Amino acid sequence: MAKPLKVGLAGLGTVGTAVMRLLEHERDKLAARCGRPIEVVAVSARSRGKKRGIDLKKLRWFADPARLAADPEIDVLVEVIGGAGNPAKRAVETALAAGKPVVTANKALLASEGYKLAMLAERHDVALNFEASVAGGIPIVKTLREGLNGNSFNRIYGILNGTCNYILSRMEEDRLAFAECLREAQRLGYAEADPSFDVEGHDTAQKLSILASLAFGTKVDPGAVYVEGISSITLADLDAAAELGYRVKLLGVAVRTEAGIEQRVHPTMVRKDSAIAQVMGVTNAVTVDAEGLSPITLVGPGAGGMATASAVVSDLADIARGVRIPPFGRPAARMTAIRKAPMQRHEGGYYIRLLARDRPGSAATIARRLAQRQISLESIVQRHEIRPPGGGQAGRSGAPVPVILITYATSEDAVRKALAAVRRDRVISGRPQVIRIEKN
Amino acid sequence: MAKPLKVGLAGLGTVGTAVMRLLEHERDKLAARCGRPIEVVAVSARSRGKKRGIDLKKLRWFADPARLAADPEIDVLVEVIGGAGNPAKRAVETALAAGKPVVTANKALLASEGYKLAMLAERHDVALNFEASVAGGIPIVKTLREGLNGNSFNRIYGILNGTCNYILSRMEEDRLAFAECLREAQRLGYAEADPSFDVEGHDTAQKLSILASLAFGTKVDPGAVYVEGISSITLADLDAAAELGYRVKLLGVAVRTEAGIEQRVHPTMVRKDSAIAQVMGVTNAVTVDAEGLSPITLVGPGAGGMATASAVVSDLADIARGVRIPPFGRPAARMTAIRKAPMQRHEGGYYIRLLARDRPGSAATIARRLAQRQISLESIVQRHEIRPPGGGQAGRSGAPVPVILITYATSEDAVRKALAAVRRDRVISGRPQVIRIEKN
Repeated sequence: MAKPLKVGLAGLGTVGTAVMRLLEHERDKLAARCGRPIEVVAVSARSRGKKRGIDLKKLRWFADPARLAADPEIDVLVEVIGGAGNPAKRAVETALAAGKPVVTANKALLASEGYKLAMLAERHDVALNFEASVAGGIPIVKTLREGLNGNSFNRIYGILNGTCNYILSRMEEDRLAFAECLREAQRLGYAEADPSFDVEGHDTAQKLSILASLAFGTKVDPGAVYVEGISSITLADLDAAAELGYRVKLLGVAVRTEAGIEQRVHPTMVRKDSAIAQVMGVTNAVTVDAEGLSPITLVGPGAGGMATASAVVSDLADIARGVRIPPFGRPAARMTAIRKAPMQRHEGGYYIRLLARDRPGSAATIARRLAQRQISLESIVQRHEIRPPGGGQAGRSGAPVPVILITYATSEDAVRKALAAVRRDRVISGRPQVIRIEKN
Repeated sequence: MAKPLKVGLAGLGTVGTAVMRLLEHERDKLAARCGRPIEVVAVSARSRGKKRGIDLKKLRWFADPARLAADPEIDVLVEVIGGAGNPAKRAVETALAAGKPVVTANKALLASEGYKLAMLAERHDVALNFEASVAGGIPIVKTLREGLNGNSFNRIYGILNGTCNYILSRMEEDRLAFAECLREAQRLGYAEADPSFDVEGHDTAQKLSILASLAFGTKVDPGAVYVEGISSITLADLDAAAELGYRVKLLGVAVRTEAGIEQRVHPTMVRKDSAIAQVMGVTNAVTVDAEGLSPITLVGPGAGGMATASAVVSDLADIARGVRIPPFGRPAARMTAIRKAPMQRHEGGYYIRLLARDRPGSAATIARRLAQRQISLESIVQRHEIRPPGGGQAGRSGAPVPVILITYATSEDAVRKALAAVRRDRVISGRPQVIRIEKN
């Protein structure tokens, strides 16, 4: 058997220790599969003494991960420190510059430095693998980079943040408010103490920008993603969605349009009978629409030590087998810059929930304002339209009446302008809720 | 740019012509991705003159695919002739023996010769890629061979035959009988004139045996698969399933048990809210249960020229990039023989539909016979148990009464013996319908 692949492991948190355990547990099978053993020979972490339940005695120790990366005795660096800045960045750059392949689970680093790191890896002719950075245990990076090589992509979209999907699922299944589900997610460890990175969509945006680069050859740029989170979603929206045959999901969507690649993250209405709508809880899913092909959907665990470690070890196995493919599936020098899509140009169907004032002519005014912008309606649901028993009037207290509108495809600009006019007309109360519909 | 990868294409049917069109359409992108162009330089097919809508003038022509395979000017053979025997077999063997990598879409050939061909490919140190042979456009071969490298598998199961899934979907959605849906499938070209290969489960068994080899390292052996088709499934079964929260799918299942790897194909009750239950129509899906990991499900087009061509071209791109991994992800010499699982030892839940004779004591007798075999019941549904208006008796004409039983996990042996006893007791009419439940 060939000589072992010697791994330097930077980071010994949940993922790092899971990688060590998995490599140990699958040692013989991996060696058979790869034609050579994969061995961790050196590690780096913040605290040497911390109890981790793994034996570090036989491993060399580096306080500085960049020193580990430069160590001539390691063949490959596994970076599971996390964070876009140092020390992760310097460690990865050091390894690549020294001609060593790198496996990383670091979406933040990929999102901010992906293009530069790919250039560096290619210059030194080494692999930079990052399956674990997006959707944990789902092999979506390999699928885009190698599995659907022969196809042009039209669209890729997915549920990329387990926290948000858990919250939306709990809201719907247990009829709880957003804030309550968020607290529950925090209690269970699915959400951070500061949940805004997850619930405001930024985590999804980072992952989406990586997937878009793999699918469309754009330079990784989360700054070019339109981002909207889920904190404004109410039970009323989920109920209305269900009634109309939809479910609300926080999707990351990258789509080829005439104006270029549009990248966006926002709460989205998806057909309830679609594969992606069935994905509940912390599970992730990605759907790929390739030219001339029915959609392909991958569903699986998006996070967790074992799912992430599984992706890291697969990446290592590819390196042990000598597989070396450009990080984004094509020469980095050919990756193209991407602009933030102007959302007013976005075209699609819209869900609109309004509180119409209970006075004659409200409905007519709303209808007229939409018609002025050439917006056609697929459905209108006005709740409480059935007179209560006893002959009382709907909205008899003069309270505003919820109205749900589903539009046919139109432009976001038209929707925004029509709703601004409706507000000026003072026929609705409060801000309208607007959720984009994704055809699927 | 490096020199082109010269392809010899054997077979110019739907798939072959789709491969040519896709290579032509994606030429530049593929060349950029692979660092070299991929060019078809020679072809072989039965009839040279047939109209195919593609230009063959610049290509060399071989009447015999084995001659094409041996041609020193081709770098790789693509075999899309089909069939387990010659000429496909001889062409693939000739190419491998000449040290040329092979891409094939031929599940029948893989199922009957997979182990031998893998040995041959490894002896000559060349790739044998067959993504297109199972589940068309879904990259399940790559996922098992490379994407989930670091994991031990416990179970893999899937909807691998679009014809059967189309029939079961139509039966449920349009409330039609099996025979009617089969005729419709034939009319639409989803089913062959002789549909038995599909509807009796043999197509699924071939594909399952290939997936099992990738997942468990067993020698490909469709003869070791227990096979049962869908022709006995009635609307009554689908209705009862729906009522109890299940849906009926024809699944191929390969699972690690204490007695070894069990491979089986049969109609299966799956939880209606599972990812695989949502898969309707001709779509395929595969779920992978890896050790310590939540299930991963891949859903997508299982057949069709474009889906198959897409898989063939991905395999070609890997070869153009110099990727060479053992055909079944580990040295073929380590693949182990597999025995046909004795189904009487199968353990799991069961759906049983009986027609109980409308006489005192029938129910008690059935319950006693199940109890004697230590079979516990999760649910019992006796239809028509509500007296019709007017006070008539259920089954008042003396007609037998349908009874649906769902058992907790038990052995197939116990179920068979209990039902044999029930039949001997003459408390039921006709043969009981038995459908295995797959936990998911």
